[in-house]
Amino acid sequence: MILDRGAVEQAAQRIAGRVRRTPVVELDGAPSGTPVLLKLELLQRTGSFKVRGAFNRLLGTSPPPAGVIAASGGNHGLGVAHAAAALGVRAEIFVPVSSPEVKVERLRALGAEVTVTGAYYADALQASEARARDTGAVVVHAYDQPEVAAGQGTLALELEEQADGLDTVLVGVGGGGLIAGIAAALEGRCRVVAVEPARCPTLHQALDAGAPVDVEVGGVAADSLGARRIGRVCFDIARRTGMRSLLVQDDAIVAARRLLWEEFRVTAEHGGATALGALLSGVHPQSDGERLAVVVSGGNTDPSTL
Amino acid sequence: MILDRGAVEQAAQRIAGRVRRTPVVELDGAPSGTPVLLKLELLQRTGSFKVRGAFNRLLGTSPPPAGVIAASGGNHGLGVAHAAAALGVRAEIFVPVSSPEVKVERLRALGAEVTVTGAYYADALQASEARARDTGAVVVHAYDQPEVAAGQGTLALELEEQADGLDTVLVGVGGGGLIAGIAAALEGRCRVVAVEPARCPTLHQALDAGAPVDVEVGGVAADSLGARRIGRVCFDIARRTGMRSLLVQDDAIVAARRLLWEEFRVTAEHGGATALGALLSGVHPQSDGERLAVVVSGGNTDPSTL
Repeated sequence: MILDRGAVEQAAQRIAGRVRRTPVVELDGAPSGTPVLLKLELLQRTGSFKVRGAFNRLLGTSPPPAGVIAASGGNHGLGVAHAAAALGVRAEIFVPVSSPEVKVERLRALGAEVTVTGAYYADALQASEARARDTGAVVVHAYDQPEVAAGQGTLALELEEQADGLDTVLVGVGGGGLIAGIAAALEGRCRVVAVEPARCPTLHQALDAGAPVDVEVGGVAADSLGARRIGRVCFDIARRTGMRSLLVQDDAIVAARRLLWEEFRVTAEHGGATALGALLSGVHPQSDGERLAVVVSGGNTDPSTL
Repeated sequence: MILDRGAVEQAAQRIAGRVRRTPVVELDGAPSGTPVLLKLELLQRTGSFKVRGAFNRLLGTSPPPAGVIAASGGNHGLGVAHAAAALGVRAEIFVPVSSPEVKVERLRALGAEVTVTGAYYADALQASEARARDTGAVVVHAYDQPEVAAGQGTLALELEEQADGLDTVLVGVGGGGLIAGIAAALEGRCRVVAVEPARCPTLHQALDAGAPVDVEVGGVAADSLGARRIGRVCFDIARRTGMRSLLVQDDAIVAARRLLWEEFRVTAEHGGATALGALLSGVHPQSDGERLAVVVSGGNTDPSTL
């Protein structure tokens, strides 16, 4: 499939009624005086945008009895497990041994069969792919499938309805599934700017190198944005649309997460607050009259750290 | 002034642009299958509905140089301090010595002059009233003034726009300012049901007794809903509109607060989650086809307790 606005519109029809229309609120004290809007996607089912792509992928296939399979100890695993349960499909989720027990329990509570294997995410991913070859289960990639990205992009269609005439949308990037879908939905209509932690610069380095490359990752947001290499789906649309990637320091991410709690009493994870960090730190200075929206994409965090 | 829909509409005009239009989201798995809507007022400026009433009271007077005065170590103090700062008015807030330092700091950060005095809230209130007699400062009561209640009621006008054809709204009650304004706004249009912690039954006992009476208060929500006696403003409109007060146990309040975090990643305080407790516990059973909204009214809580 071609990842374009039509694909995102089709995804929106498919997943209608299965995901929440998440609210938009206005940030106080916008730098330029023009309102800045926050799309509070952390209020989504399972706490992040990942259910959108999971539903679109599952509804676009006829899963065999083996069901679906994914590798993720985090938001993607929750999204796939939730979508599978809602559709009555079997789900196997592979997570590395480093995953906290609380995350494994949450996946099991959603009805998924959890396999704990491998030291790192890459090992769990490899094991899940081997398993899928044996069983025929449908693989749901965390970001690098057009169907997954198209599902994530449905967020942008909602946002357009909620906010007329946007000039710019800031989106945090890990593997790039969310921003790929948003860029497809808004191509030719609105500027979509990538924001990455300076310590997880996968898209930034890929754009510099002219191709996806492996990157060292670390810092406060690595648990959710720490993909080692940008997805091909994202890279292609980033080049097609001339997307820029801004880098923000960890302290700006921490400040953005803190502001979301202080101002709105919502608990963003560091990755979910990264895009807002670009505005607060001035890495993306709001220009006069610029109508700007920022996606707050995930809230699966330990609230005791706020 | 008469507390009726007209008063609330006037308040809405007065405070327009100064408070947030807070979002409404749908609760999953509503008991009767008809959607249940949550008005997430905890996303309001300062974390609760109290800014609405504070702005309406301040904008309805011409404060003298002594400014405004209020007694509260909690949400009301934050609301008054915020409104005063926004309007360039001096604010004095009296808090009892039992108030945590973090709350005092937050009031000072908003620019208020804080006086720490008295063992209990009632002592701080008495001291603030004596001070107001000396200085001529405008008193902003936490709940028992028609202007304050009318301001809080503006929440209901928003809710009507956000949700067509509501049958019932569940509202948590402490001193009764919020529900008084909501009942005034929706009189003859929609049923407004009071929900109180079983251990803070001020309206319930007043309705039984035929007049406001002093009540023993305690339990998990006493910090925000622990008024010892229902306000006259609330009592009068409760009688006029035939309002009922339901009582919920602390464990239902705790479960409601937990659900709000698990499902939406928002941090409600126990008082803010009390109305939802009535639905979860079946104290208010949703009838077939009943279009129901629940107000989630405050989020000033310690997130490490979630």
